[in-house]
Amino acid sequence: MENNIETSRALATRIYDLDSEVYRLVGSSLGRTFTGDKETSIRNLTTLISTHPQGHLLRSEIALIGNMARTIRNKEDRSRMMHEYNEILHQIAELPESFGSVDILDQNLASLNTSNLHQKFSKDDHLIICIGRTHGSAGTDIGFALADALKINYYDVEIFNRVLERLEAEKDSVTDRDSFTSKLNQVAKHDTSAKRFLKDFSRYHGLPKKDAVFFNQSDLIVEMAKKEDFIVMGRCADVILTNNRIPHISIFITAPFEQRVRRMMEVNNLPLKEAVRRLKKIDKGHEQYYHFYTGRKWGDAVNYDLCINSACYGIEESVELIERMIDIHPEK
Amino acid sequence: MENNIETSRALATRIYDLDSEVYRLVGSSLGRTFTGDKETSIRNLTTLISTHPQGHLLRSEIALIGNMARTIRNKEDRSRMMHEYNEILHQIAELPESFGSVDILDQNLASLNTSNLHQKFSKDDHLIICIGRTHGSAGTDIGFALADALKINYYDVEIFNRVLERLEAEKDSVTDRDSFTSKLNQVAKHDTSAKRFLKDFSRYHGLPKKDAVFFNQSDLIVEMAKKEDFIVMGRCADVILTNNRIPHISIFITAPFEQRVRRMMEVNNLPLKEAVRRLKKIDKGHEQYYHFYTGRKWGDAVNYDLCINSACYGIEESVELIERMIDIHPEK
Repeated sequence: MENNIETSRALATRIYDLDSEVYRLVGSSLGRTFTGDKETSIRNLTTLISTHPQGHLLRSEIALIGNMARTIRNKEDRSRMMHEYNEILHQIAELPESFGSVDILDQNLASLNTSNLHQKFSKDDHLIICIGRTHGSAGTDIGFALADALKINYYDVEIFNRVLERLEAEKDSVTDRDSFTSKLNQVAKHDTSAKRFLKDFSRYHGLPKKDAVFFNQSDLIVEMAKKEDFIVMGRCADVILTNNRIPHISIFITAPFEQRVRRMMEVNNLPLKEAVRRLKKIDKGHEQYYHFYTGRKWGDAVNYDLCINSACYGIEESVELIERMIDIHPEK
Repeated sequence: MENNIETSRALATRIYDLDSEVYRLVGSSLGRTFTGDKETSIRNLTTLISTHPQGHLLRSEIALIGNMARTIRNKEDRSRMMHEYNEILHQIAELPESFGSVDILDQNLASLNTSNLHQKFSKDDHLIICIGRTHGSAGTDIGFALADALKINYYDVEIFNRVLERLEAEKDSVTDRDSFTSKLNQVAKHDTSAKRFLKDFSRYHGLPKKDAVFFNQSDLIVEMAKKEDFIVMGRCADVILTNNRIPHISIFITAPFEQRVRRMMEVNNLPLKEAVRRLKKIDKGHEQYYHFYTGRKWGDAVNYDLCINSACYGIEESVELIERMIDIHPEK
């Protein structure tokens, strides 16, 4: 602790001196950060550093000096001061953990976020983007356009159901196992996923149909996630993949209610009243489905890596924004 | 309308033919999208296109073909099919508005979002980033680090109050107007903002102190926004700038409650129970402040351009993510 105090005091002195120098160069004492006498200022600053090094107040004190330093007219003086300022910032950043300098990283969440530059991912990890969206937010269009921009597959409820139907149809008509799985390669493109699927398909017999469908879709998502890059719309895919510890990017796309109503009126050619009624009903359904299968609040920002307000960007912009986020730069 | 039907039918035929060709090349009829007879398939597809061109179902039909086309082994065949597939996508995208192909863009919102590539901004528009955040989400650290990465000023409640105090102090001690405003340049760096501020300062006399402070801060934000790039933390700055039609980027940073509690325990060295109690109290306060002055729900994704879950990225990652979003690439 003694040591901490000393470190803090040395740093406090350095900050105080920077402040004095900056304001001398600015040529005015007005707006000077430390107006009290040197000893008192340094003592308070020392306490601040050794107690809340990452605290709001310390940041503000330093920001004030930085803001002022940027106004120094003489280029040389300015860069000298900015250099010292940055050095001090680094010193603060490097204060030991015991000082309370802690990052917000949730290793479990972060390790599942493939857009997280500093996370190491194995060659087997695929780019899987889960997109949840409110109806009328153009989330589907954005997901579809993104899949084409990235040249990866796009899956939504219709496609899953289609694939599942086919698998089932095949299951009935099959005689020779090899020809069967080889055929399945054209569907799910992975015999293992097909085998697994058929195993589970019987496992889930006896469940309410709705649940059986959900579980079958879940298994399909998990199996595909081990084999290919793709974008999946809805289906609680984000939670399914998280529970299976499969890295992915989860995005939620929404837009203001009025905006979504307007879009619904335009796209489905509906009168205002009807559009509002339907949209409320659809939102409610989404909410219940998501909560029923995940126990989470649908659309709550903390459930996703990123939330996008499509009304601020439009479809094309949103696609480019996501491309930038995952650091794949738009060809355009 | 007749014309629309014809266009739709031509497009439907083109899609049907692509489907047939793709599955011929994949060498299996399994998973073929249009399994019915050609005439029926094209009729249904035509209806789908002329009614809901941007609809979920049509996208799925096409995605199925695209997904399958990507599995064609022969490189030449594949690129030929993918080319035709993209052409069809463009045709759909170019269907007239009357077809319901409408973007989600809210011109009012979009024109205020400076990260919106396709919006044209005048030379006078500055890069202003408003960051709202939940306590314990490291939002302050992220905003501060971002300001330094972008080399722009950083403003938060402490700094505003400091600036306001100084302006007031100066106001009392001032004798010569010129020397006064010249001094103010060191504070707000803009005499107009200072003049404006003083005008308003008296205007708001008679208001509850809390409100006077809020309005003074608001005016300061608006004035500064006309003169410099900066990052502003909280203060309902996003709504204040929106109401004043000043372009800006609004970001909300949050993290799961447990995560924020953990951070609070570490940073402020508190026991679990106390951290939970305080955090709930702080969240409530934020909510009420934001709602009181904006009438909006605090932290609701539709109020921001972007919401970031800092638990998925950590501080450094979040900064880089925002830099990528505004298309300023990290120097690292």
